[in-house]
Formats: sequence, structure tokens, C-alpha cells
Amino acid sequence: MSVQNWEIRARRAKDVLLNSVPKQWILPAHRLPPAHQKNVEDFPRKSGVLSDREVSITEMSATALVAGMRAGLLSAEEVVIAFLKRAVLGHQLLNFATEFMAERAIARARELDEHFKRTGKLVGPLHGVPISVKEHIAIKGRTCNAGFVAWVDDIANEDALLVQYLEKAGAVFHVRTNQPQSLMHLCCDNNLTGPTTNPYNRTLTPGGSSGGEGASMGFKCAALGVGTDIGGSVRAPAGFCGAYGFRPTTLRLPGTGIKVPGAGQEAIRGTAGPLASQSVEDLDLFQRAILDQEPWEIETSLVPIPWRRVKATKAMTVGIMWDDGCVRPHPPVTRALQHAKEKLLAAGIKVVDWEPYRHDHGWEIVVRPSPLNPALHPSLASPQLTTPPEKSNLYFPDAANSQRTVLSQSGEPLLPLTEWAFAYSRASPLTIPENWALNYKRDVYRDEYHALMKSRGVDFILCPVYVGAAAVMGESQYWNYTAIWNILDYPGVVFPSGLVVDPALDPLDGGYRPRSEVDAREWVKYRPERYEGAPIGLQLVGKHFKDEETLAAAGLVSDIVQGRAEDIKPRL
Amino acid sequence: MSVQNWEIRARRAKDVLLNSVPKQWILPAHRLPPAHQKNVEDFPRKSGVLSDREVSITEMSATALVAGMRAGLLSAEEVVIAFLKRAVLGHQLLNFATEFMAERAIARARELDEHFKRTGKLVGPLHGVPISVKEHIAIKGRTCNAGFVAWVDDIANEDALLVQYLEKAGAVFHVRTNQPQSLMHLCCDNNLTGPTTNPYNRTLTPGGSSGGEGASMGFKCAALGVGTDIGGSVRAPAGFCGAYGFRPTTLRLPGTGIKVPGAGQEAIRGTAGPLASQSVEDLDLFQRAILDQEPWEIETSLVPIPWRRVKATKAMTVGIMWDDGCVRPHPPVTRALQHAKEKLLAAGIKVVDWEPYRHDHGWEIVVRPSPLNPALHPSLASPQLTTPPEKSNLYFPDAANSQRTVLSQSGEPLLPLTEWAFAYSRASPLTIPENWALNYKRDVYRDEYHALMKSRGVDFILCPVYVGAAAVMGESQYWNYTAIWNILDYPGVVFPSGLVVDPALDPLDGGYRPRSEVDAREWVKYRPERYEGAPIGLQLVGKHFKDEETLAAAGLVSDIVQGRAEDIKPRL
Repeated sequence: MSVQNWEIRARRAKDVLLNSVPKQWILPAHRLPPAHQKNVEDFPRKSGVLSDREVSITEMSATALVAGMRAGLLSAEEVVIAFLKRAVLGHQLLNFATEFMAERAIARARELDEHFKRTGKLVGPLHGVPISVKEHIAIKGRTCNAGFVAWVDDIANEDALLVQYLEKAGAVFHVRTNQPQSLMHLCCDNNLTGPTTNPYNRTLTPGGSSGGEGASMGFKCAALGVGTDIGGSVRAPAGFCGAYGFRPTTLRLPGTGIKVPGAGQEAIRGTAGPLASQSVEDLDLFQRAILDQEPWEIETSLVPIPWRRVKATKAMTVGIMWDDGCVRPHPPVTRALQHAKEKLLAAGIKVVDWEPYRHDHGWEIVVRPSPLNPALHPSLASPQLTTPPEKSNLYFPDAANSQRTVLSQSGEPLLPLTEWAFAYSRASPLTIPENWALNYKRDVYRDEYHALMKSRGVDFILCPVYVGAAAVMGESQYWNYTAIWNILDYPGVVFPSGLVVDPALDPLDGGYRPRSEVDAREWVKYRPERYEGAPIGLQLVGKHFKDEETLAAAGLVSDIVQGRAEDIKPRL
Repeated sequence: MSVQNWEIRARRAKDVLLNSVPKQWILPAHRLPPAHQKNVEDFPRKSGVLSDREVSITEMSATALVAGMRAGLLSAEEVVIAFLKRAVLGHQLLNFATEFMAERAIARARELDEHFKRTGKLVGPLHGVPISVKEHIAIKGRTCNAGFVAWVDDIANEDALLVQYLEKAGAVFHVRTNQPQSLMHLCCDNNLTGPTTNPYNRTLTPGGSSGGEGASMGFKCAALGVGTDIGGSVRAPAGFCGAYGFRPTTLRLPGTGIKVPGAGQEAIRGTAGPLASQSVEDLDLFQRAILDQEPWEIETSLVPIPWRRVKATKAMTVGIMWDDGCVRPHPPVTRALQHAKEKLLAAGIKVVDWEPYRHDHGWEIVVRPSPLNPALHPSLASPQLTTPPEKSNLYFPDAANSQRTVLSQSGEPLLPLTEWAFAYSRASPLTIPENWALNYKRDVYRDEYHALMKSRGVDFILCPVYVGAAAVMGESQYWNYTAIWNILDYPGVVFPSGLVVDPALDPLDGGYRPRSEVDAREWVKYRPERYEGAPIGLQLVGKHFKDEETLAAAGLVSDIVQGRAEDIKPRL
């Protein structure tokens, strides 16, 4: 096989990565778990690389780490070294990093320690917290390729605005993380540094597009992470990897310096969002640390709403959405919802069923539904779906030409899930009036959904993160358990239910008759053994701009569902 | 001349209007001022139609009217009858109405009076305040044509959301007002009910596109009015007619039920905004009355920022923009700015010069600059302007096809200022990526402008409303003294300086050498006698989303400039 030009360019991304891995903490291959071992999540304890104290540090929440540093019990330097060690192990097992920044991180940690020694004060609410960052969020002086080979030599002129604010708040950046080609997979593979895998089951994807972040959180390579989300790209990775993730309402977190093709697209906005390895509380800490700095004073398109301090109470109504009316969740997901329902009821929370409101309609605002192949599933073919509405395209108003252009600049081949995503676009770009008509349809749908939540008295919707607990590598085809909330622009929090896929508890339900080809396609993927050990995440969604309330509620709900509600939570 | 089909349709709008004018208050032609009398603003006092008490009522602020009703000194019925009488006179002189709603208004006023008698309470903050409404803001069961002949038979299914909120707050709607064809003139003429004129000088336009509202306010046919503004359409009419007007930051006031071609256009958003005949305080009252009802709970694209109560203090810095760097204001405008500067300095307000930041660049984001005709002005032709940037089009991303389509549906001829506006569009629609690139450029410009205001320490910019005190009918060609703030999405308040154009004080400045053909085109329009008697408005602009602060500051600044600062303001 001859080496193509694009491969030569792509190798530069690998070189950046390989040169950056701190050699002193690399474990020889024979000391790593065997390649066939699926679950590697608990390897750090056994690796011999981390001391017990270091293992403990890496399993603390950001909130607890900061408290520990404030109390003088921890130094920022030992914290970042612990996380760096764990991140190197994680990378060896999961290929989640695109670049380590060990020297920078350690130097920064020492600065923080010196500051604390000198003043007795922390520099900010994230003092000394190691944070991993998705690669397309620019770091000054470093490559920013966004998963495209063509952009491998693009060096950022300055830190993304979000990175600047995090740094001012005291964060330490030690590792940058992987993303899929085109940024439009719920998986995580590209032609630069290759696929990232899931720490709980290495035949599964960590999710995407912030898949490197999912792996980073699942393996606890950082206390907090930063991803981006336009269709589930923060929440799927959090859910697949047993972690916490938050997609805020758009226009709250700054986007300046986050590299994507087609900047200026506003019909469906993407947003950055935090991931956390330990708690919902850490997601709130992240939001607070940014928004207390008033980012709208620099990025003026942001909405100037300060981050409000909200306390959750049990006086709320949670609607459980068991199924989106289109694609049935796999049995483990339904079991986790059932488990959550029982726990919430037992805790005295009002729980009702949430009947989804036209999620197919919402979905068809953003994508062209895949044409059915009636030959394959004659019994399932529905006449509506065989004639996809040609005007639906808000995920790809330009027919993905901005992405295709960047791909063609290097000549790199399209990965199957890139082809899959682009197939959601119709062949030709929208015209301006078509785009306007869809914007209008989107707004009407948003108003209707909101009115329905109010009239039903539902404050939050508890729902699946994805069809399954996770996806097998390359199989993440159905986005609408997360994307629907992007279409509606609702804040959503993902948290682990505490349950994992268990073939004994999650047998195949042979009796289910899928409602459509898409439903069938997803249903046939389920066999319990394929997902064994995968943590089952849940998603709590709140109303537009009710970010603070949604996070507060998710903190309470996750504690209840995980059975920690009555525990005294450890606070260092 | 044969009657065309479009004329037959257009006549239906005239019929609606003529049938709606309350006959009992129509004055015979011989009792009206002669057609050649330019200034008719003070005619109500002399007309014999209104009693002295009625004249006084119509010259009260909305705030004072509500206070009077709360004190039991005024009834809603007598108030609306006074304004109806004045509005009928105004319409006879200025042709500003598209439809009277006398019966509805009087019935509503009686309801309010009964409510007050029964409960001793007002129904809301606008109890009994007569409000005129621009025609394209829907009123249930009535035509909503938005100035297009093709839409003359479109009957609204429900009140615009804004109208619903105003009505809940106690408003009384007695008259609907005129707008120009296409809604994209700063004048006010159409093929339906014809041109509206300016009460201070009937050879001048009342401005546009909310020109009927300008006339309504200038003649005091209502205490408050509702217009819409995407390039100056609230502010120009307020300025030309000696009234008050406010363009809020977009996404604060609801837009549902406001009819325009091309719904879903979001690159440069239009917004509704109030006009007031008496005070800035009334503009704040309007905003408060709406936003206290949380309109974002229905129209979810609105930003959920409650209306804040803000008090202005003299501790602010006002930057005066004497010239936008492109088109020189006429001498009366410069005189009013000079007058304002002296008054502000005397009042102890910090005043600096505001050097405009690339207003030509801002303008070129939204329109294709008119190609120069070097044959006409060889000495002025600049090479840049003769090759207009083909990609600039955010006012007409679809090349005005949505408007052209509606126009062609009736076959009505395009008015010259419609042709003028459409000439600001390039010939072909933007592509989606071109639109995105302009959105991006717009956001960068907004961020830069904001950073500059902050770094210069300027809180508010005091500037012209328009090149001149007003425009001669059909001559309002230069929009960028108002449009620039739409491009930047800054709130702007217009108020009367208290001065009027005076040939003795505002002679022609023969020595000025225009910088461009556009500058020359506007400069040659000035001869003092053409604008005699026109009130000179000023515009105070604040930062994005600083609506409350901008209104509060404008209240203080207008009091100072008008010499009312030290007076005890009458409060009923």
C-alpha cells in the first residue's frame, strides 16, 4: 500500500502526540492489560504507576480538590502529576489524547502553589484543577486541526476564550483530547490519531464527538473536561463512559476560538459544555467559574445572564420519557429508567410519564431522514419515510460543503460515519428562503414544546442519553435522544445511573415489533453481551435557559438514583 | 388612465380606512388649515373639536394619564375620546391612519372604567392608555397587509403577541397606522392608503417605516405607539416628528404576529419598539408593562431577562458622535448636538467626542453600497466604492425576492424608495456560506465596537438620528445614522432636542467638501427653508442589552438638553 500525501500530513498529528507523551510514565506493553481485555477502567489501581494517594486524588471531584488545596492538604503540583500519570495510562489503553502538555501543566501548577504559599489564597474557583480539553478548542501556539488532516498545520494565535477564562479561574491544562473526523459522529475516530475506545469496554466507542473527553472522564484522567455539543457531543461521551456532562443553553458559554468549518452558522448553534468525572456539582462549578467572569463583555453575542445560585428541592415534577416515539431504547436503558423511577418515587419526588411531542418532526427540521429501503424491510416501510422531505437540513444547510471542502483539501478518505452524517444532508444546499422557513418551523416547534411542558406541569424530563448504554465502535447512527434537545435548545445533564449492562438482567426482548426501519436497525444491534459492563447513563433535561435549575435538579436526582441521597457527601 | 387590477384590490384598504373613520369628529374641509400650510402641529387647539380639557388630556404623558385614572381624576372613556378626536383631525391633515377602531376602543375604555369603579384598582400599568399600532402588527379579525397590496385581504387570526400583552396591561387600541411599501423606507408611502406627512411641515416625511406612528406621536393622536425597527424605523419617525422612540436590543420584545415577508430571517433581526409623544419615561413604562409579563414564556426565542429598574445618575460618560465618518449631518443637527453638549457640560456630565469606528464597514455588512457614477462626480469617485463588495447583503440575503414576490402577486408598481432599498441588495441571493461569512464578520465587528466603547470609557453615544432634522418626502436615502445600531444591536433612544430648524440659525455651509458621492448627495439636499420648522431629534445609544440603562440615561439627558432637568416634573 503506497503512502498517500494525506497520510504524510496526518503523521504530523501523530508526531505531535507521540512527542508530547511524558516518557517517564509510559508503561511497557507487557505491564498493560492484554488487548482482548475489554474493561480497563480500574487498571490505574493495579498499574503500579500511581501511589494510593495519587489514585485517591484522581478520584476526587474538582470541588473536593479545590477544597483540599484551600486547606493546604494538597498541592496543585502533586494533583496534576497524579492526573498526568493516569492520563498517560489512559492514553496507552484508550488512545484518547491528541497532545499532552505536561511541562506547561506542571509549571502552571507550581505557579499556583507559589501563589498560594505567598498569599494564602487560591487564584480562583478552579485553582489547581486539571482539565482536559477537546482538541478543536484552541490552545495558543499549538495545532488546532478539529479532526481534519487539512488543518494539521494550523497553529492557534491565541487560546480560545473559554480556555482563557478557565485559566484565569485557576485551571491547569495537561492534555488535549480526540474528536472524530468532521466532528459529526457520536463516535470518535479520525485519520489523524485514530480511534478512541471506551474504558469500560474497549469494543465500545467512548461516544463523540467529544469522545476523547468521554474517555478522559471515564478513566479519570482529569477532574473536569471541556467538550462541545451540537447534537449530543458532550452528553453521549459522558453517558457512554459513566461520567457527567452538561450541554448548556446556547449563547451562555463563549465559542470564540473553537474551530469548526462553517463559522457563522446559527440555525442550530453548537455550544461548549463541561464534563466531569465525579459529580454534577463539578459541572456547576465549571459554569460558575466561567460566567462569573461575564464572558458577554468580550463575546457580545452571548446572553448577559449571570450564573444564578440555585438550590434544588424535592418540590419538582419529573417526566420520564421511556421512548422517543421513534426508536426504542435497548433493555438496559429501560431498566435504568425504571430503577430511577422507583428511587425518585421512594424519595418523594413527583414522577409522571412524559409522552414525547413530535420528536420525529423536530428531527426532520435538522436532517433529511434516511430514505428507507423497502426491499430490506418490506413490513416496516412507511410511506412517509420513503419520501423524505427535501427541505429539511438545518444540520447541514450548505449540504456539508464546508466540511467536504476541508476534507478534499487534504484528500483524506471519508470515514463511514462521516458518510453517514453527510447522508443526513440533502444533496443541494438550502436556499436562503428555505433556511428561513426552517428557522421559523424550529421556533414554532420550540414554542409548542415549551407550552406543553408548562401545561403538563413538568419541570424536567428524565430520558435516555442514547438508544443503548453505549454504541459499538462505528455503530452510533441514531442521534435524536440527544439532538432533539439541541433542536429545542434545552439544557441537558447526563449522569451515571450507577447501573451497568448485565446480560442476566438485560435479556433480549424478542417480542418487540419495530415501528420503522430505523427502529429496527437500532433494535437489532442489541445483544447484551455486546455491551457488557457498559455504564448506563441517564439524561435530565430542563427548559430553555433554566440551566441553573436543571443542574441543581440533576444533582439531586443523580444522588437519589445512585443511592447517595441520604449519605453524607464527603467534603474535604 | 385605466384602472388596474391592483388598484381595485388596493381600494379595499382605502375602504376599510374610510369606513372606520368616526364620522362625528370629521371636520369639513373649509375648517381645516389650507393645504399649503406646512406646520399643522398646533391645529387641535384651534380646531374647536377638542375642549380645553381634551387638549390637555392629549398632551399628557402615558404615565400621567395612568396616575390620573388611578386618582379617579380621569376616565378611560374620556381619555380615549379625546385622543380619537385628535386622531381624526390628525388623519385629515396627515393621512397617518390605516384603520380606526373607535367602537372597540370606547367599549374597552368603558370596561376599564367599570373595572376601576368596581374594584378601585387599575387592570395594569397601561390602564386606559390609548396606543396607536403600526398596521403590520396583527389585530385579530382585521386586515394585516404590511403595506403590500397583495396582502390586503389577509385577515389576522389573532392579535400579535405584543398586542395581547399590551391589552392585558390595560392599553386601549384606537387607531392603526401607516407604513411604506416593503417596510424598507425611512419614508411612509404605499399603494394602499398613500403617503403620510409630517405634522411639523407637511412637505416633509414623518419618517419610516413606522411613519404613521411618527405622525401619530407628533400630532399627539395617542400617548404611546408601537412601531418596528430593523434600520431606523422606530427612531427616524420619532426624530422627524418631535417625539420619543426606542429601539430595544433584539429578542426582548415579542415578534409573534408581526407580519413581514421572509419570516425566519435572523442575520439582522428587526424588533418592535415603543414611541411616545411626551417622555422617555413612557418608553420605559411600555417596556416594563410588557417584560413584567415574561413574554419569553410564550415566545421562547426571547431572552429571559426581566426588565430591570434602573435609575440614571450623572456619573456617566457620553461620547458625542458629530459625524459618522461617511455622511455629514446637516447644520441643524450639528447645532442640536452642540447645544446638547453645552447643556450636558453645564449639568456636570462628562462629555467626550466619539470617533465612529468603521461605520462604513458596518454598513457594508448589510448592504451593497450604491455603485458610484463617476461621470456625475468625477472629483469624488473613490476607487473602492466603484467596485462594491458583491458579498454584502444582510439586509436582503435573498436579494429581496421575498418582497418582490409579494409585490408581483398584486402587480402593484414599485415606488421609487422601494427601488432604492432593493438597489441596496446585490442582484443574486447570498449562498448559505456567504451568509455565514457575513454573520461572522458582523459578530467580529460587534465585539470590536464593544471593546472600543469599554476601552474609551464611554457609556453612551449621543448622535444624530438622521442626516437632517427630517427628510423631504421621498428623499430619505441614507439610513446609517440609525441602521448602524441595528447592525451592532445596540439599544437606541430618540428624543427631541427642543430645537427646530431655523434658517436664521442654520445657514448653508458653503465651504464643506464632501468626502464621497453619497456624502455629496446628502449635503446638496440641505437648504434651510426646505426643513423649516422641523424638530431636531437626537439619539442616545447604549451597549448591547443595556436597554434599561440606556433609557434611564436618555431620560436624564433629554431633561437636561430640553432644559427641564431642574424643573419639578409634573406628576399627576
